[in-house]
Amino acid sequence: MYDIAIIGTGPAGLEAAITAKVRNKNIILFGSKESSVKVSKAHAILNYLGLPEISGSDMASAFLSHAERMGVEITEEQITGIYAMGEMFAIQGAQNMYEAKTVILATGVIAQKPYPNEEKLLGRGVSYCATCDAALYKGKTAIIIGSTPKEEAEADFMTEYAGRVYYIPLYKDEVHTNEKVEVVRETPLEIIGDTKVEKLKTNQREIEADGIFVLREAVAPGQLVPGLETEGPHIKVSVDMSTSIPGCFAAGDIAGLPYQYIKAAGQGNTAALSAVAYLTKLEHEG
Amino acid sequence: MYDIAIIGTGPAGLEAAITAKVRNKNIILFGSKESSVKVSKAHAILNYLGLPEISGSDMASAFLSHAERMGVEITEEQITGIYAMGEMFAIQGAQNMYEAKTVILATGVIAQKPYPNEEKLLGRGVSYCATCDAALYKGKTAIIIGSTPKEEAEADFMTEYAGRVYYIPLYKDEVHTNEKVEVVRETPLEIIGDTKVEKLKTNQREIEADGIFVLREAVAPGQLVPGLETEGPHIKVSVDMSTSIPGCFAAGDIAGLPYQYIKAAGQGNTAALSAVAYLTKLEHEG
Repeated sequence: MYDIAIIGTGPAGLEAAITAKVRNKNIILFGSKESSVKVSKAHAILNYLGLPEISGSDMASAFLSHAERMGVEITEEQITGIYAMGEMFAIQGAQNMYEAKTVILATGVIAQKPYPNEEKLLGRGVSYCATCDAALYKGKTAIIIGSTPKEEAEADFMTEYAGRVYYIPLYKDEVHTNEKVEVVRETPLEIIGDTKVEKLKTNQREIEADGIFVLREAVAPGQLVPGLETEGPHIKVSVDMSTSIPGCFAAGDIAGLPYQYIKAAGQGNTAALSAVAYLTKLEHEG
Repeated sequence: MYDIAIIGTGPAGLEAAITAKVRNKNIILFGSKESSVKVSKAHAILNYLGLPEISGSDMASAFLSHAERMGVEITEEQITGIYAMGEMFAIQGAQNMYEAKTVILATGVIAQKPYPNEEKLLGRGVSYCATCDAALYKGKTAIIIGSTPKEEAEADFMTEYAGRVYYIPLYKDEVHTNEKVEVVRETPLEIIGDTKVEKLKTNQREIEADGIFVLREAVAPGQLVPGLETEGPHIKVSVDMSTSIPGCFAAGDIAGLPYQYIKAAGQGNTAALSAVAYLTKLEHEG
Protein backbone atom coordinates (compact mmCIF):
# COMPACT_ATOMS: atom_id res chain seq x y z
CA MET A 1 0.00 0.00 0.00
CA TYR A 2 1.62 3.22 -1.18
CA ASP A 3 1.05 6.58 0.49
CA ILE A 4 0.79 8.38 -2.84
CA ALA A 5 0.41 7.05 -6.39
CA ILE A 6 1.30 9.64 -9.01
CA ILE A 7 0.18 9.16 -12.61
CA GLY A 8 2.23 11.05 -15.17
CA THR A 9 5.87 12.04 -15.60
CA GLY A 10 5.59 15.51 -17.04
CA PRO A 11 6.57 18.47 -14.83
CA ALA A 12 3.49 18.11 -12.60
CA GLY A 13 4.09 14.43 -11.85
CA LEU A 14 7.86 14.75 -11.40
CA GLU A 15 7.53 17.77 -9.09
CA ALA A 16 4.84 15.98 -7.07
CA ALA A 17 7.19 13.00 -6.76
CA ILE A 18 10.21 14.96 -5.53
CA THR A 19 8.12 16.95 -3.07
CA ALA A 20 6.56 13.74 -1.72
CA LYS A 21 10.10 12.31 -1.38
CA VAL A 22 11.22 15.38 0.59
CA ARG A 23 8.31 14.63 2.92
CA ASN A 24 9.43 10.98 3.21
CA LYS A 25 6.34 9.48 1.68
CA ASN A 26 6.21 6.02 0.15
CA ILE A 27 5.30 6.74 -3.46
CA ILE A 28 4.89 5.08 -6.83
CA LEU A 29 5.19 7.13 -10.01
CA PHE A 30 3.73 5.83 -13.28
CA GLY A 31 4.80 7.21 -16.61
CA SER A 32 7.61 7.29 -19.11
CA LYS A 33 11.32 7.23 -18.26
CA GLU A 34 11.61 9.92 -20.92
CA SER A 35 9.30 12.37 -19.06
CA SER A 36 6.56 13.51 -21.46
CA VAL A 37 6.64 13.99 -25.22
CA LYS A 38 5.08 17.42 -24.68
CA VAL A 39 8.19 18.47 -22.75
CA SER A 40 10.94 16.74 -24.70
CA LYS A 41 9.66 17.81 -28.13
CA ALA A 42 9.20 21.48 -27.25
CA HIS A 43 11.53 23.83 -29.14
CA ALA A 44 12.53 26.54 -26.71
CA ILE A 45 10.89 27.38 -23.41
CA LEU A 46 11.43 30.99 -22.41
CA ASN A 47 9.52 31.30 -19.16
CA TYR A 48 10.40 28.47 -16.80
CA LEU A 49 11.90 30.69 -14.10
CA GLY A 50 15.51 29.70 -13.39
CA LEU A 51 16.06 27.79 -16.66
CA PRO A 52 16.29 30.57 -19.24
CA GLU A 53 15.75 29.77 -22.94
CA ILE A 54 16.00 26.02 -22.60
CA SER A 55 15.16 23.37 -25.20
CA GLY A 56 12.50 20.81 -24.41
CA SER A 57 14.99 17.96 -24.44
CA ASP A 58 17.36 19.79 -22.06
CA MET A 59 14.43 20.57 -19.79
CA ALA A 60 13.30 16.95 -19.78
CA SER A 61 16.88 15.90 -18.90
CA ALA A 62 17.07 18.46 -16.08
CA PHE A 63 13.74 17.25 -14.68
CA LEU A 64 14.61 13.56 -14.92
CA SER A 65 18.07 13.93 -13.39
CA HIS A 66 16.61 15.97 -10.53
CA ALA A 67 14.05 13.23 -9.90
CA GLU A 68 16.70 10.52 -10.10
CA ARG A 69 18.90 12.39 -7.63
CA MET A 70 15.99 12.44 -5.18
CA GLY A 71 15.58 8.68 -5.50
CA VAL A 72 12.39 8.85 -7.56
CA GLU A 73 11.77 5.74 -9.66
CA ILE A 74 9.47 5.58 -12.66
CA THR A 75 7.22 2.58 -13.29
CA GLU A 76 6.53 2.29 -17.02
CA GLU A 77 3.14 0.65 -16.78
CA GLN A 78 0.04 2.06 -18.37
CA ILE A 79 -2.72 2.81 -15.88
CA THR A 80 -6.14 2.01 -17.24
CA GLY A 81 -8.43 2.62 -14.28
CA ILE A 82 -8.39 4.10 -10.79
CA TYR A 83 -11.14 3.21 -8.34
CA ALA A 84 -11.93 5.05 -5.11
CA MET A 85 -12.58 2.44 -2.39
CA GLY A 86 -13.28 4.55 0.71
CA GLU A 87 -9.94 5.27 2.35
CA MET A 88 -7.80 3.86 -0.45
CA PHE A 89 -7.59 3.60 -4.20
CA ALA A 90 -7.28 0.49 -6.38
CA ILE A 91 -5.13 1.24 -9.39
CA GLN A 92 -5.46 -1.01 -12.42
CA GLY A 93 -2.30 -1.21 -14.47
CA ALA A 94 -1.76 -3.09 -17.73
CA GLN A 95 0.12 -5.83 -15.82
CA ASN A 96 -0.54 -5.33 -12.11
CA MET A 97 -3.01 -4.00 -9.60
CA TYR A 98 -1.74 -1.41 -7.08
CA GLU A 99 -3.10 0.16 -3.92
CA ALA A 100 -2.50 3.65 -2.60
CA LYS A 101 -4.00 5.89 0.07
CA THR A 102 -3.95 8.93 -2.20
CA VAL A 103 -3.66 9.57 -5.93
CA ILE A 104 -2.27 12.49 -7.89
CA LEU A 105 -3.43 12.68 -11.51
CA ALA A 106 -0.90 14.42 -13.74
CA THR A 107 -1.57 12.71 -17.03
CA GLY A 108 -1.74 15.75 -19.27
CA VAL A 109 -4.60 16.33 -21.66
CA ILE A 110 -5.56 14.61 -24.85
CA ALA A 111 -5.43 17.01 -27.76
CA GLN A 112 -7.50 14.55 -29.74
CA LYS A 113 -11.27 14.16 -29.31
CA PRO A 114 -12.79 10.69 -28.92
CA TYR A 115 -14.05 9.15 -32.16
CA PRO A 116 -17.81 8.97 -32.60
CA ASN A 117 -19.14 5.93 -30.63
CA GLU A 118 -15.77 5.40 -28.95
CA GLU A 119 -17.09 6.06 -25.47
CA LYS A 120 -20.32 4.16 -26.07
CA LEU A 121 -18.43 1.05 -27.21
CA LEU A 122 -15.68 1.20 -24.56
CA GLY A 123 -15.43 -2.31 -23.11
CA ARG A 124 -17.52 -3.61 -26.02
CA GLY A 125 -14.69 -3.93 -28.48
CA VAL A 126 -13.09 -0.55 -27.84
CA SER A 127 -10.08 -0.75 -25.54
CA TYR A 128 -7.23 1.53 -24.46
CA CYS A 129 -4.86 -1.27 -23.51
CA ALA A 130 -3.70 -3.95 -25.93
CA THR A 131 -1.62 -5.70 -23.26
CA CYS A 132 -4.70 -6.05 -21.03
CA ASP A 133 -7.19 -7.28 -23.58
CA ALA A 134 -5.22 -9.01 -26.37
CA ALA A 135 -6.17 -12.49 -25.11
CA LEU A 136 -9.85 -11.70 -25.72
CA TYR A 137 -9.18 -11.46 -29.47
CA LYS A 138 -7.79 -14.94 -30.18
CA GLY A 139 -8.22 -15.59 -33.87
CA LYS A 140 -10.23 -12.40 -34.31
CA THR A 141 -9.56 -9.09 -36.10
CA ALA A 142 -8.05 -6.18 -34.20
CA ILE A 143 -7.25 -2.63 -35.24
CA ILE A 144 -4.60 -0.71 -33.33
CA ILE A 145 -4.66 3.07 -33.68
CA GLY A 146 -1.30 4.38 -32.46
CA SER A 147 -0.54 8.00 -31.52
CA THR A 148 3.19 7.43 -31.16
CA PRO A 149 5.72 4.87 -32.46
CA LYS A 150 5.73 3.38 -28.92
CA GLU A 151 2.44 1.71 -29.78
CA GLU A 152 4.00 -0.39 -32.57
CA ALA A 153 5.09 -2.91 -29.93
CA GLU A 154 1.43 -3.28 -28.96
CA ALA A 155 0.56 -4.18 -32.55
CA ASP A 156 3.34 -6.77 -32.62
CA PHE A 157 2.13 -8.22 -29.34
CA MET A 158 -1.43 -8.39 -30.65
CA THR A 159 -0.32 -10.69 -33.49
CA GLU A 160 0.37 -13.37 -30.88
CA TYR A 161 -3.39 -13.64 -30.34
CA ALA A 162 -5.47 -12.02 -33.08
CA GLY A 163 -5.90 -13.65 -36.48
CA ARG A 164 -5.61 -10.31 -38.28
CA VAL A 165 -4.02 -7.11 -36.99
CA TYR A 166 -4.25 -3.70 -38.64
CA TYR A 167 -2.02 -0.88 -37.41
CA ILE A 168 -3.02 2.71 -38.14
CA PRO A 169 -0.27 5.18 -37.23
CA LEU A 170 -1.44 8.73 -36.50
CA TYR A 171 2.10 10.02 -37.15
CA LYS A 172 4.27 10.29 -40.25
CA ASP A 173 7.38 8.37 -39.07
CA GLU A 174 8.24 5.05 -40.71
CA VAL A 175 6.55 2.12 -38.99
CA HIS A 176 8.54 -0.91 -37.79
CA THR A 177 6.17 -3.75 -37.00
CA ASN A 178 6.40 -7.47 -37.70
CA GLU A 179 5.27 -8.94 -41.04
CA LYS A 180 1.91 -10.09 -39.65
CA VAL A 181 0.82 -6.52 -38.98
CA GLU A 182 -0.98 -4.75 -41.85
CA VAL A 183 -0.03 -1.09 -41.73
CA VAL A 184 -2.87 1.14 -42.90
CA ARG A 185 -2.14 4.79 -43.76
CA GLU A 186 -5.70 6.05 -43.46
CA THR A 187 -7.44 8.50 -41.14
CA PRO A 188 -9.90 6.96 -38.67
CA LEU A 189 -13.19 8.87 -38.68
CA GLU A 190 -15.74 6.87 -36.73
CA ILE A 191 -16.28 3.63 -34.88
CA ILE A 192 -19.31 1.77 -36.14
CA GLY A 193 -21.34 -0.61 -34.02
CA ASP A 194 -24.53 -0.76 -32.00
CA THR A 195 -23.95 -3.05 -28.99
CA LYS A 196 -20.41 -3.98 -29.95
CA VAL A 197 -17.69 -2.87 -32.36
CA GLU A 198 -18.38 -3.83 -35.96
CA LYS A 199 -16.25 -1.59 -38.17
CA LEU A 200 -13.87 1.32 -38.28
CA LYS A 201 -14.78 3.96 -40.82
CA THR A 202 -11.74 5.71 -42.30
CA ASN A 203 -11.37 8.45 -44.89
CA GLN A 204 -11.18 5.69 -47.53
CA ARG A 205 -13.36 2.73 -46.50
CA GLU A 206 -14.90 0.73 -43.70
CA ILE A 207 -12.76 -1.98 -42.08
CA GLU A 208 -14.47 -4.84 -40.25
CA ALA A 209 -13.05 -5.54 -36.81
CA ASP A 210 -13.88 -7.24 -33.50
CA GLY A 211 -11.63 -5.00 -31.43
CA ILE A 212 -10.39 -1.43 -31.87
CA PHE A 213 -7.51 -0.33 -29.63
CA VAL A 214 -7.17 3.42 -29.39
CA LEU A 215 -3.71 4.00 -27.95
CA ARG A 216 -3.24 7.64 -27.04
CA GLU A 217 -0.72 9.34 -24.76
CA ALA A 218 -3.35 9.67 -22.07
CA VAL A 219 -6.84 8.49 -21.26
CA ALA A 220 -9.67 11.00 -20.63
CA PRO A 221 -9.88 11.69 -16.87
CA GLY A 222 -13.53 10.72 -16.47
CA GLN A 223 -12.73 7.35 -18.02
CA LEU A 224 -9.61 6.85 -15.92
CA VAL A 225 -11.28 7.62 -12.59
CA PRO A 226 -14.98 6.80 -12.60
CA GLY A 227 -17.02 9.37 -10.66
CA LEU A 228 -14.49 12.19 -10.99
CA GLU A 229 -16.02 15.58 -11.65
CA THR A 230 -14.70 17.08 -14.89
CA GLU A 231 -15.08 20.30 -16.86
CA GLY A 232 -14.66 19.57 -20.55
CA PRO A 233 -11.29 17.83 -20.96
CA HIS A 234 -10.14 18.94 -17.48
CA ILE A 235 -10.56 17.71 -13.93
CA LYS A 236 -12.35 20.19 -11.67
CA VAL A 237 -9.91 21.27 -8.95
CA SER A 238 -9.75 23.68 -6.03
CA VAL A 239 -6.79 25.98 -5.37
CA ASP A 240 -5.24 23.21 -3.20
CA MET A 241 -5.51 20.81 -6.18
CA SER A 242 -8.15 18.64 -4.52
CA THR A 243 -10.79 17.09 -6.79
CA SER A 244 -14.37 15.94 -6.20
CA ILE A 245 -13.03 12.64 -4.76
CA PRO A 246 -11.39 12.86 -1.30
CA GLY A 247 -7.74 11.78 -1.45
CA CYS A 248 -7.58 12.30 -5.21
CA PHE A 249 -5.64 15.35 -6.42
CA ALA A 250 -4.80 16.65 -9.89
CA ALA A 251 -2.08 18.87 -11.31
CA GLY A 252 -0.79 20.17 -14.62
CA ASP A 253 -2.60 20.38 -17.95
CA ILE A 254 -5.27 17.91 -16.81
CA ALA A 255 -6.22 20.40 -14.07
CA GLY A 256 -6.96 23.14 -16.60
CA LEU A 257 -5.44 26.04 -18.51
CA PRO A 258 -2.88 27.51 -18.95
CA TYR A 259 -0.81 24.67 -20.44
CA GLN A 260 2.56 25.81 -19.09
CA TYR A 261 5.49 23.86 -17.65
CA ILE A 262 6.08 26.01 -14.58
CA LYS A 263 2.37 26.13 -13.75
CA ALA A 264 2.25 22.34 -14.00
CA ALA A 265 5.27 21.96 -11.71
CA GLY A 266 3.80 24.42 -9.19
CA GLN A 267 0.53 22.54 -9.10
CA GLY A 268 2.39 19.23 -8.71
CA ASN A 269 4.04 20.68 -5.62
CA THR A 270 0.73 21.84 -4.18
CA ALA A 271 -0.95 18.52 -4.97
CA ALA A 272 1.82 16.59 -3.20
CA LEU A 273 1.61 18.74 -0.07
CA SER A 274 -2.18 18.53 -0.07
CA ALA A 275 -1.86 14.74 -0.32
CA VAL A 276 0.58 14.79 2.62
CA ALA A 277 -1.92 16.86 4.66
CA TYR A 278 -4.68 14.41 3.74
CA LEU A 279 -2.53 11.45 4.85
CA THR A 280 -1.91 13.14 8.21
CA LYS A 281 -5.65 13.64 8.62
CA LEU A 282 -6.30 9.96 7.76
CA GLU A 283 -3.79 8.86 10.43
CA HIS A 284 -5.35 11.04 13.11
CA GLU A 285 -8.82 9.82 12.30
CA GLY A 286 -7.84 6.15 11.83
CA MET B 1 -0.55 53.45 -18.40
CA TYR B 2 0.97 49.99 -17.99
CA ASP B 3 -0.79 46.80 -19.08
CA ILE B 4 0.28 44.94 -15.94
CA ALA B 5 1.76 46.20 -12.67
CA ILE B 6 3.40 43.43 -10.67
CA ILE B 7 4.14 43.95 -6.98
CA GLY B 8 6.86 41.70 -5.59
CA THR B 9 10.12 40.21 -6.85
CA GLY B 10 10.05 36.75 -5.31
CA PRO B 11 9.49 33.76 -7.61
CA ALA B 12 5.81 34.63 -8.19
CA GLY B 13 6.49 38.21 -9.26
CA LEU B 14 9.54 37.39 -11.39
CA GLU B 15 7.77 34.53 -13.16
CA ALA B 16 4.73 36.73 -13.78
CA ALA B 17 7.05 39.37 -15.25
CA ILE B 18 8.87 37.04 -17.66
CA THR B 19 5.62 35.45 -18.80
CA ALA B 20 4.08 38.88 -19.40
CA LYS B 21 7.21 39.81 -21.38
CA VAL B 22 6.87 36.69 -23.53
CA ARG B 23 3.35 37.91 -24.30
CA ASN B 24 4.70 41.37 -25.21
CA LYS B 25 2.90 43.24 -22.46
CA ASN B 26 3.98 46.62 -21.19
CA ILE B 27 4.75 45.92 -17.54
CA ILE B 28 6.16 47.52 -14.42
CA LEU B 29 7.62 45.35 -11.67
CA PHE B 30 8.02 46.75 -8.15
CA GLY B 31 10.31 45.11 -5.62
CA SER B 32 13.92 44.55 -4.70
CA LYS B 33 16.78 44.11 -7.17
CA GLU B 34 17.90 41.30 -4.86
CA SER B 35 14.67 39.31 -5.35
CA SER B 36 13.23 38.45 -1.91
CA VAL B 37 14.95 37.82 1.41
CA LYS B 38 12.88 34.67 1.76
CA VAL B 39 14.55 33.27 -1.36
CA SER B 40 18.10 34.53 -0.95
CA LYS B 41 18.41 33.55 2.72
CA ALA B 42 17.10 29.99 2.27
CA HIS B 43 19.70 27.30 2.96
CA ALA B 44 19.07 24.56 0.46
CA ILE B 45 15.99 24.06 -1.68
CA LEU B 46 15.50 20.43 -2.71
CA ASN B 47 12.29 20.49 -4.70
CA TYR B 48 12.37 23.26 -7.29
CA LEU B 49 12.12 20.97 -10.32
CA GLY B 50 15.09 21.45 -12.63
CA LEU B 51 17.35 23.15 -10.07
CA PRO B 52 18.37 20.27 -7.77
CA GLU B 53 19.69 21.02 -4.28
CA ILE B 54 20.27 24.72 -4.82
CA SER B 55 21.10 27.37 -2.23
CA GLY B 56 18.78 30.30 -1.78
CA SER B 57 21.37 32.78 -3.00
CA ASP B 58 22.09 30.71 -6.15
CA MET B 59 18.37 30.42 -6.76
CA ALA B 60 17.88 34.18 -6.40
CA SER B 61 20.75 34.74 -8.86
CA ALA B 62 19.26 32.28 -11.35
CA PHE B 63 15.87 33.99 -11.10
CA LEU B 64 17.25 37.51 -11.42
CA SER B 65 19.52 36.71 -14.35
CA HIS B 66 16.63 35.00 -16.14
CA ALA B 67 14.48 38.09 -15.61
CA GLU B 68 17.28 40.39 -16.78
CA ARG B 69 17.80 38.29 -19.90
CA MET B 70 14.11 38.74 -20.72
CA GLY B 71 14.42 42.51 -20.40
CA VAL B 72 12.56 42.73 -17.10
CA GLU B 73 13.42 45.82 -15.06
CA ILE B 74 12.82 46.20 -11.34
CA THR B 75 11.54 49.47 -9.86
CA GLU B 76 12.68 49.74 -6.24
CA GLU B 77 9.85 51.86 -4.96
CA GLN B 78 7.66 50.83 -2.07
CA ILE B 79 3.99 50.55 -2.97
CA THR B 80 1.72 51.77 -0.21
CA GLY B 81 -1.73 51.59 -1.77
CA ILE B 82 -3.51 50.21 -4.83
CA TYR B 83 -6.92 51.57 -5.75
CA ALA B 84 -9.36 49.95 -8.19
CA MET B 85 -10.83 52.69 -10.39
CA GLY B 86 -13.17 50.79 -12.72
CA GLU B 87 -11.11 49.68 -15.71
CA MET B 88 -7.73 50.68 -14.26
CA PHE B 89 -5.78 50.81 -11.04
CA ALA B 90 -4.08 53.78 -9.37
CA ILE B 91 -0.90 52.63 -7.67
CA GLN B 92 0.51 54.82 -4.92
CA GLY B 93 4.26 54.52 -4.57
CA ALA B 94 6.50 56.21 -2.02
CA GLN B 95 7.64 58.72 -4.68
CA ASN B 96 5.28 58.43 -7.63
CA MET B 97 1.78 57.51 -8.68
CA TYR B 98 1.37 54.87 -11.40
CA GLU B 99 -1.51 53.59 -13.50
CA ALA B 100 -2.06 50.09 -14.82
CA LYS B 101 -4.92 48.18 -16.41
CA THR B 102 -4.25 45.09 -14.31
CA VAL B 103 -2.37 44.30 -11.12
CA ILE B 104 -0.64 41.14 -9.91
CA LEU B 105 -0.01 41.01 -6.16
CA ALA B 106 2.99 38.85 -5.29
CA THR B 107 4.16 40.52 -2.11
CA GLY B 108 4.61 37.46 0.06
CA VAL B 109 3.11 37.19 3.52
CA ILE B 110 3.94 38.93 6.71
CA ALA B 111 5.04 36.45 9.34
CA GLN B 112 4.43 39.16 11.92
CA LYS B 113 0.98 40.10 13.22
CA PRO B 114 -0.05 43.76 13.45
CA TYR B 115 0.56 45.36 16.86
CA PRO B 116 -2.51 46.09 18.99
CA ASN B 117 -4.08 49.37 17.75
CA GLU B 118 -1.81 49.44 14.69
CA GLU B 119 -4.66 49.12 12.22
CA LYS B 120 -6.92 51.47 14.17
CA LEU B 121 -4.28 54.23 14.18
CA LEU B 122 -3.10 53.75 10.60
CA GLY B 123 -3.00 57.23 9.07
CA ARG B 124 -3.31 58.72 12.56
CA GLY B 125 0.35 58.48 13.42
CA VAL B 126 0.93 54.92 12.26
CA SER B 127 2.54 54.77 8.83
CA TYR B 128 4.20 52.14 6.64
CA CYS B 129 6.29 54.56 4.62
CA ALA B 130 8.83 56.92 6.15
CA THR B 131 9.70 58.41 2.77
CA CYS B 132 6.05 59.34 2.19
CA ASP B 133 5.22 60.84 5.55
CA ALA B 134 8.50 62.13 7.05
CA ALA B 135 7.63 65.75 6.24
CA LEU B 136 4.58 65.53 8.51
CA TYR B 137 6.82 65.05 11.55
CA LYS B 138 8.91 68.23 11.40
CA GLY B 139 10.33 68.78 14.90
CA LYS B 140 8.27 65.90 16.30
CA THR B 141 9.15 62.50 17.73
CA ALA B 142 9.15 59.46 15.43
CA ILE B 143 9.77 55.79 16.11
CA ILE B 144 10.90 53.55 13.26
CA ILE B 145 10.43 49.81 13.73
CA GLY B 146 12.60 48.07 11.15
CA SER B 147 12.29 44.40 10.10
CA THR B 148 15.48 44.41 8.05
CA PRO B 149 18.69 46.50 7.94
CA LYS B 150 17.33 48.07 4.74
CA GLU B 151 15.09 50.23 6.98
CA GLU B 152 18.05 51.95 8.65
CA ALA B 153 18.19 54.36 5.72
CA GLU B 154 14.59 55.35 6.53
CA ALA B 155 15.63 56.24 10.09
CA ASP B 156 18.51 58.34 8.78
CA PHE B 157 16.16 60.10 6.38
CA MET B 158 13.69 60.77 9.18
CA THR B 159 16.30 62.76 11.12
CA GLU B 160 16.14 65.39 8.36
CA TYR B 161 12.64 66.26 9.60
CA ALA B 162 11.82 64.88 13.04
CA GLY B 163 13.24 66.38 16.23
CA ARG B 164 13.80 62.99 17.79
CA VAL B 165 14.13 59.64 16.04
CA TYR B 166 14.13 56.24 17.73
CA TYR B 167 15.07 53.17 15.71
CA ILE B 168 13.96 49.75 16.94
CA PRO B 169 15.58 46.91 14.95
CA LEU B 170 13.67 43.62 14.95
CA TYR B 171 16.87 41.78 13.95
CA LYS B 172 20.13 41.03 15.69
CA ASP B 173 22.62 42.50 13.18
CA GLU B 174 24.65 45.57 14.12
CA VAL B 175 22.82 48.80 13.28
CA HIS B 176 24.51 51.52 11.20
CA THR B 177 22.52 54.74 11.50
CA ASN B 178 23.62 58.34 11.87
CA GLU B 179 24.39 59.82 15.30
CA LYS B 180 21.00 61.56 15.59
CA VAL B 181 19.16 58.21 15.61
CA GLU B 182 18.64 56.65 19.04
CA VAL B 183 18.83 52.88 18.62
CA VAL B 184 16.54 51.08 21.04
CA ARG B 185 16.99 47.35 21.59
CA GLU B 186 13.55 46.65 23.00
CA THR B 187 10.58 44.61 21.82
CA PRO B 188 7.52 46.60 20.70
CA LEU B 189 4.34 45.22 22.27
CA GLU B 190 1.53 47.67 21.67
CA ILE B 191 0.74 51.02 20.12
CA ILE B 192 -1.07 53.29 22.58
CA GLY B 193 -3.45 56.04 21.52
CA ASP B 194 -7.12 56.75 21.16
CA THR B 195 -7.66 59.02 18.15
CA LYS B 196 -3.96 59.38 17.37
CA VAL B 197 -0.66 57.77 18.30
CA GLU B 198 0.54 58.67 21.81
CA LYS B 199 3.06 56.05 22.87
CA LEU B 200 4.74 52.80 21.97
CA LYS B 201 4.71 50.24 24.74
CA THR B 202 7.76 47.97 24.72
CA ASN B 203 8.86 45.11 26.95
CA GLN B 204 10.65 47.69 29.13
CA ARG B 205 8.74 50.98 29.09
CA GLU B 206 6.43 53.33 27.24
CA ILE B 207 7.97 55.72 24.72
CA GLU B 208 6.08 58.89 23.80
CA ALA B 209 5.85 59.52 20.07
CA ASP B 210 3.89 61.42 17.42
CA GLY B 211 4.55 58.96 14.65
CA ILE B 212 5.29 55.23 14.58
CA PHE B 213 6.61 53.80 11.33
CA VAL B 214 6.22 50.04 11.08
CA LEU B 215 8.50 48.98 8.23
CA ARG B 216 7.96 45.36 7.34
CA GLU B 217 8.89 43.42 4.22
CA ALA B 218 5.30 43.58 3.05
CA VAL B 219 2.04 45.29 3.89
CA ALA B 220 -1.05 43.22 4.73
CA PRO B 221 -3.05 42.71 1.52
CA GLY B 222 -6.31 44.19 2.82
CA GLN B 223 -4.41 47.38 3.71
CA LEU B 224 -2.59 47.50 0.39
CA VAL B 225 -5.70 47.07 -1.76
CA PRO B 226 -8.83 48.40 -0.07
CA GLY B 227 -11.86 46.20 -0.75
CA LEU B 228 -9.89 43.06 -1.53
CA GLU B 229 -11.39 39.88 -0.12
CA THR B 230 -8.95 38.10 2.19
CA GLU B 231 -8.83 34.89 4.23
CA GLY B 232 -6.66 35.44 7.28
CA PRO B 233 -3.27 36.68 6.04
CA HIS B 234 -4.01 35.55 2.45
CA ILE B 235 -5.85 36.93 -0.54
CA LYS B 236 -8.79 34.82 -1.64
CA VAL B 237 -8.06 33.48 -5.13
CA SER B 238 -9.60 31.17 -7.71
CA VAL B 239 -7.64 28.50 -9.58
CA ASP B 240 -6.90 31.07 -12.31
CA MET B 241 -5.44 33.41 -9.62
CA SER B 242 -8.20 35.99 -9.96
CA THR B 243 -9.26 37.83 -6.79
CA SER B 244 -12.50 39.50 -5.70
CA ILE B 245 -11.53 42.61 -7.71
CA PRO B 246 -11.73 42.27 -11.53
CA GLY B 247 -8.31 42.83 -13.12
CA CYS B 248 -6.50 42.16 -9.84
CA PHE B 249 -4.67 38.85 -9.56
CA ALA B 250 -2.52 37.33 -6.82
CA ALA B 251 0.23 34.70 -6.73
CA GLY B 252 2.69 33.10 -4.35
CA ASP B 253 2.62 33.04 -0.55
CA ILE B 254 0.11 35.90 -0.43
CA ALA B 255 -2.34 33.67 -2.33
CA GLY B 256 -2.21 30.96 0.33
CA LEU B 257 -0.40 27.83 1.42
CA PRO B 258 1.85 26.00 0.71
CA TYR B 259 4.76 28.45 0.98
CA GLN B 260 6.91 26.90 -1.73
CA TYR B 261 9.07 28.48 -4.42
CA ILE B 262 7.88 26.39 -7.35
CA LYS B 263 4.24 26.81 -6.36
CA ALA B 264 4.78 30.57 -6.22
CA ALA B 265 6.41 30.60 -9.67
CA GLY B 266 3.64 28.45 -11.13
CA GLN B 267 0.97 30.77 -9.76
CA GLY B 268 2.89 33.80 -11.09
CA ASN B 269 2.71 32.24 -14.53
CA THR B 270 -1.02 31.59 -14.25
CA ALA B 271 -1.67 35.10 -12.89
CA ALA B 272 0.22 36.67 -15.80
CA LEU B 273 -1.71 34.68 -18.40
CA SER B 274 -5.01 35.43 -16.66
CA ALA B 275 -4.08 39.13 -16.72
CA VAL B 276 -3.31 38.82 -20.45
CA ALA B 277 -6.71 37.19 -21.04
CA TYR B 278 -8.37 39.97 -19.02
CA LEU B 279 -6.59 42.62 -21.12
CA THR B 280 -7.83 40.96 -24.31
CA LYS B 281 -11.37 41.01 -22.94
CA LEU B 282 -11.04 44.71 -22.02
CA GLU B 283 -9.92 45.53 -25.58
CA HIS B 284 -12.81 43.67 -27.16
CA GLU B 285 -15.32 45.32 -24.90
CA GLY B 286 -13.74 48.78 -25.10
